Amino acid sequence: MMDVFTSPTPNGIKVPIALEELGIAYRLHQVDLSRGGASVPELRAVNPNAKIPAIVDKLADGQSVPVFESGAILLYIAGLKPGLIPTSAVAHASTLSWLFLQVAGLGPNFGNASYFLRNDPANLVAIERFHSEARRHLALLDQRLGESEWLNGEDYSIADIAHFSWVRSASYAGLSLLDYHHAQAWTSRIEQREAVRRGIERCQTGNSI
Amino acid sequence: MMDVFTSPTPNGIKVPIALEELGIAYRLHQVDLSRGGASVPELRAVNPNAKIPAIVDKLADGQSVPVFESGAILLYIAGLKPGLIPTSAVAHASTLSWLFLQVAGLGPNFGNASYFLRNDPANLVAIERFHSEARRHLALLDQRLGESEWLNGEDYSIADIAHFSWVRSASYAGLSLLDYHHAQAWTSRIEQREAVRRGIERCQTGNSI
Repeated sequence: MMDVFTSPTPNGIKVPIALEELGIAYRLHQVDLSRGGASVPELRAVNPNAKIPAIVDKLADGQSVPVFESGAILLYIAGLKPGLIPTSAVAHASTLSWLFLQVAGLGPNFGNASYFLRNDPANLVAIERFHSEARRHLALLDQRLGESEWLNGEDYSIADIAHFSWVRSASYAGLSLLDYHHAQAWTSRIEQREAVRRGIERCQTGNSI
Repeated sequence: MMDVFTSPTPNGIKVPIALEELGIAYRLHQVDLSRGGASVPELRAVNPNAKIPAIVDKLADGQSVPVFESGAILLYIAGLKPGLIPTSAVAHASTLSWLFLQVAGLGPNFGNASYFLRNDPANLVAIERFHSEARRHLALLDQRLGESEWLNGEDYSIADIAHFSWVRSASYAGLSLLDYHHAQAWTSRIEQREAVRRGIERCQTGNSI
């Protein structure tokens, strides 16, 4: 059984969504972020960075496998069962490219836009920098989704789960999807998936630590 | 033969280093960043985000496989030949965790620290935010390298290449390695590898586009 340490945040929902999609059983431990991750010993034991999400998978041979960083966990989960990363060379590589673009590009820019809006709203240089980068990433996503139903060009994958988890909460970063029709339609398609609904719901109802 | 579009930057050197380590042949196209990546049609054709590094691998069956984002390219290359990602479950997952921590954590914080230092040096709130996060990431790295010779706990891997490529240039972000003895010793160990020297040198001497 896999133990999942998470919270209902953009990075936090990625993991239960992927597990629900593949039908993999897990125990969810909801980390109360108001305590600060560093004060949660169960989380620090898995992730030296003391951030959610983090998992410990228990293998059939008894070994425990810790994994941290949402992108690493998505790739780890996609390696357990077929369904969330294609095997064909081009679509596999495309899934990696779009997955990394979310965690290294869209995510930090959305996060920093949101941080300065809330904590230093007069810091116009910082807000403009991160807002313009966030909008540029939304435009890239929108263009891609105008060419292809899913980001890797072939099928729904962990690249879609990673981007969806942030884009659905664009308003937190002061952004609207109204100008990004393809991204908006894709967000609605993903929101309607049963596994996605269950994953988000589990995040809000797991036992708290 | 693989075509590599890159420049001598922290993300740009990762790819030739990994290829030199595995002895994989490639053609290097040095992108002149002063032109702006978006104005380089060869780069835009591979990466809609128009950033280096990007690659196109040509498979034996004639298929072309484009990959972008430095983390995605490192994983793709590590999948071509053994040597840069362990097969044991724990060390494999640990490689993923530390690889993603670099591209989603240390990299954006170093990059933003450097950006505000150069472009808005009076923006003390932004500089302090990114500097303190960058130092926190260096401390995590240092602690890990005090426990283990390499980041995944087993062997030199793409997680080390990813972090090394940024940490060796810490001074660009206004940071010093003097307080991080383990990270400093590890940086020197990696700098002395023949493949690392060749990879960095190739970045500075490829044909320009």
